Amino acid sequence: MKKKTVVALDAMGGDNAPLEIVKGAVEAVNERDDIIVHLFGDEEQVRNELKKYTYPRDQIRLTHTGEVISVEESPAVAIKKKKDSSMVAGILSVKNGDCDAFISGGSSGAVLVGGQVLVGKEKGIKRAPLAPIIPNEKGVSLLIDCGANVDAKPEHLVQFAQMGSIYMKNIIGVENPRVGIVNIGAEETKGNALVKETFPLLKACPGINFIGSVEARDITKGIADVIVTEAFVGNVVLKMMEGVASTLISLIKEGMMSSTRSKIGALLVKPALKDTLKLFDATEYGGAPLLGLKGLVVKIHGNATSKETKHAIFQCVTFKEQKVNEKIREHLGIPAAPAAGE
Amino acid sequence: MKKKTVVALDAMGGDNAPLEIVKGAVEAVNERDDIIVHLFGDEEQVRNELKKYTYPRDQIRLTHTGEVISVEESPAVAIKKKKDSSMVAGILSVKNGDCDAFISGGSSGAVLVGGQVLVGKEKGIKRAPLAPIIPNEKGVSLLIDCGANVDAKPEHLVQFAQMGSIYMKNIIGVENPRVGIVNIGAEETKGNALVKETFPLLKACPGINFIGSVEARDITKGIADVIVTEAFVGNVVLKMMEGVASTLISLIKEGMMSSTRSKIGALLVKPALKDTLKLFDATEYGGAPLLGLKGLVVKIHGNATSKETKHAIFQCVTFKEQKVNEKIREHLGIPAAPAAGE
Repeated sequence: MKKKTVVALDAMGGDNAPLEIVKGAVEAVNERDDIIVHLFGDEEQVRNELKKYTYPRDQIRLTHTGEVISVEESPAVAIKKKKDSSMVAGILSVKNGDCDAFISGGSSGAVLVGGQVLVGKEKGIKRAPLAPIIPNEKGVSLLIDCGANVDAKPEHLVQFAQMGSIYMKNIIGVENPRVGIVNIGAEETKGNALVKETFPLLKACPGINFIGSVEARDITKGIADVIVTEAFVGNVVLKMMEGVASTLISLIKEGMMSSTRSKIGALLVKPALKDTLKLFDATEYGGAPLLGLKGLVVKIHGNATSKETKHAIFQCVTFKEQKVNEKIREHLGIPAAPAAGE
Repeated sequence: MKKKTVVALDAMGGDNAPLEIVKGAVEAVNERDDIIVHLFGDEEQVRNELKKYTYPRDQIRLTHTGEVISVEESPAVAIKKKKDSSMVAGILSVKNGDCDAFISGGSSGAVLVGGQVLVGKEKGIKRAPLAPIIPNEKGVSLLIDCGANVDAKPEHLVQFAQMGSIYMKNIIGVENPRVGIVNIGAEETKGNALVKETFPLLKACPGINFIGSVEARDITKGIADVIVTEAFVGNVVLKMMEGVASTLISLIKEGMMSSTRSKIGALLVKPALKDTLKLFDATEYGGAPLLGLKGLVVKIHGNATSKETKHAIFQCVTFKEQKVNEKIREHLGIPAAPAAGE
C-alpha cells in the first residue's frame, strides 16, 4: 500500500479559523484516501467543528495546543516563546518527521520565521523565498519572492529562478517553464543595480528557460511562468494585483447598481461574470510554499476558505510525490543529506 | 490683459501623432483664449491635420522640424544628435524662454533626458522625478517617482515628498495632502534599507503631512494623496495598475459575451459601466510632470488621445498660474535664481 502523506494543519491560523480550516481538512480526506490531516489547535473548538461532519476517522488526527500566535505579535519572539502554539507545534511536527508538510493561514511573519528557524534551510540554500501562485489571462505564474526578507542579492535571485522552475514543472505541470525577471523595460541594459547584476547570471544559468525582463504590465498577460524578483517588489506586485482587482470589481458592482436598467443587466451577466472572475482567483492552486527548506511549509491566505485549505493539502501531497525537495537539491548540487525526519 | 501661457507641443510624439496631438491642441485653444500652443513637427503633416479644423489662428504656432526621435533610439544619443527633432526643438523653446512648458507623448527616456540635460534641474534639486497622477476609488493620487533614474537615496525621496505635496495642493487642489511611502507593511520597522532610512527623515520633514507607510494593496483605495517611492517600485506600481485593469476588463468583456443571456445583460449594463470605468481613467488630469526642473516638461502617454493632450495643456497653464516652480524653490529653500527664460 502507498504510504499516506501526513499534512500538519494550523487549525487556529487565519480569520476563518477553526471553521473553514477544519472544513477544508474534512473535504480533503473525504475526497482522497492517501492523505492524513494532523490538526493542531484548541481541542474543544476543533472537536466542535469536526462534529459537524462525517469523514474517515483514521484520516484526521488532532493534537491539542493551548496557545495561538496572533498577527500583531513579533514573529521572532512568538516563535521562540509560544512553544504550545498551534503554529510552533505544527512546524515542529515537520522538523521531527511526524508530518510531511505544514500549512497555516496565520501570521505570515511567524510562518516565515518558524519555517526558517525551526525546520531550517537546506544546506546551500542562501534564502528561502515565499512563492505564491498568481493568476494571469492564460493560467497561472509563480511569483518568487514575496517574503519578508528584502534587499536580496543576485545569487539569491538565481536560486529563486531554479527552485521556481522545479516547482512550476512538478507541481503545476508546466514543461520548460519560462523564467522572467521583473524589470522597468525589456532591454538588458535597463533596471536597477540588482537586476542588472542578476540578468547575466540568469542568462548563464543552466537548466532554466530564461526569457529576459518582464515588465509589470505584462505579468497578468501570462508572459512568463516563473516571475523572479526580490521580496519588496514581489510584495508590491502581489498586493497591487489584489488592490487593483478589488477596487475595479467594487467600482463595477457599484456601476451596475446605478440605474434600473443596469440592475436588470447585472442580473443577466452575473453568472457569466462569476465564472470569469473565478479565472482570476488562484485559490484553486493552494497556498504559497516557502521553498528551499528541509521540509515543506505552506502559507495560505489569512482569509482562506475551506476550498483554499483543501487545495493546499493536495498541493502538499503533490510536492511530496514529485519529490520537489530532492529535485531542488539535485538541481542545485546540494549533497543529498537527509531532509528533516528522513 | 493677462499674458497667455505658451505651451510647446511635440506634434510628432506618440502612436497617435500627429492626428490626436494636433486635435488636442485645437480643442484646447477653442476652449480657452489664454493659451497659445506652439507645435513642433513636420510642417506638411501638421498643416494637413490643422486644415481639418477651425480655430483662432493667433493661438496656434508652428515650427517645422525635420527629425523625429523614436522610442527605439538611445535617449541620450538622440537628444544629443537630433537637434532638428520636434522633441529637442520643443524642449529648447522652454529653455530659452519662448515657451512656458513642453509636452510630449514620445519616447519617455528622451523626455527625461531632454528635460534634465536641456532644461536642467533647479539648483539644489538632487533628482527630477516623473510623477503621474493615478486614479483611486475616491479620486486621484500622485505617484512620485516613476522615472528612469532608479536606486534613489533617502534625500531624493524626501524632496519627492515635498515637491509632490506642492503639486497636489496647487494643481489638483488637495489641501494638506497626505504623504505615504510605499512599503511592505504598515509598521515603521518594516521595509527595505531605503524605506527604513527614509521613514524618519519624512517624519521629521517640516511642511508635509506624512502619514507613514502605504501598502501596495491600499494605493487604489485612496489612502494617500502623494505616494512616494523610488522609480523602480513606482514603475511596477504604475504598470501593475495598467496591466491588472486591462486584464480584468478584457476578461469581463469576454465573460459578458459568453452566452446570449449575458450578451443582453451586457447591453443593459454598458452605459453605467462606461461611466464607472471613466473614474478609473486618469487622462482627465493631463500628463506626468518631470518635477524640479527650471521649466516644465510633461510626459503624456504614448497612446495619448486629443483629450489627454488637451488636459495636459490646461495642466501646464495651472502650473504656471500657481507658480509651482517658485513654490518648490521657496519650500526647499532654493535661492530664487531666475528660472529658464525668466
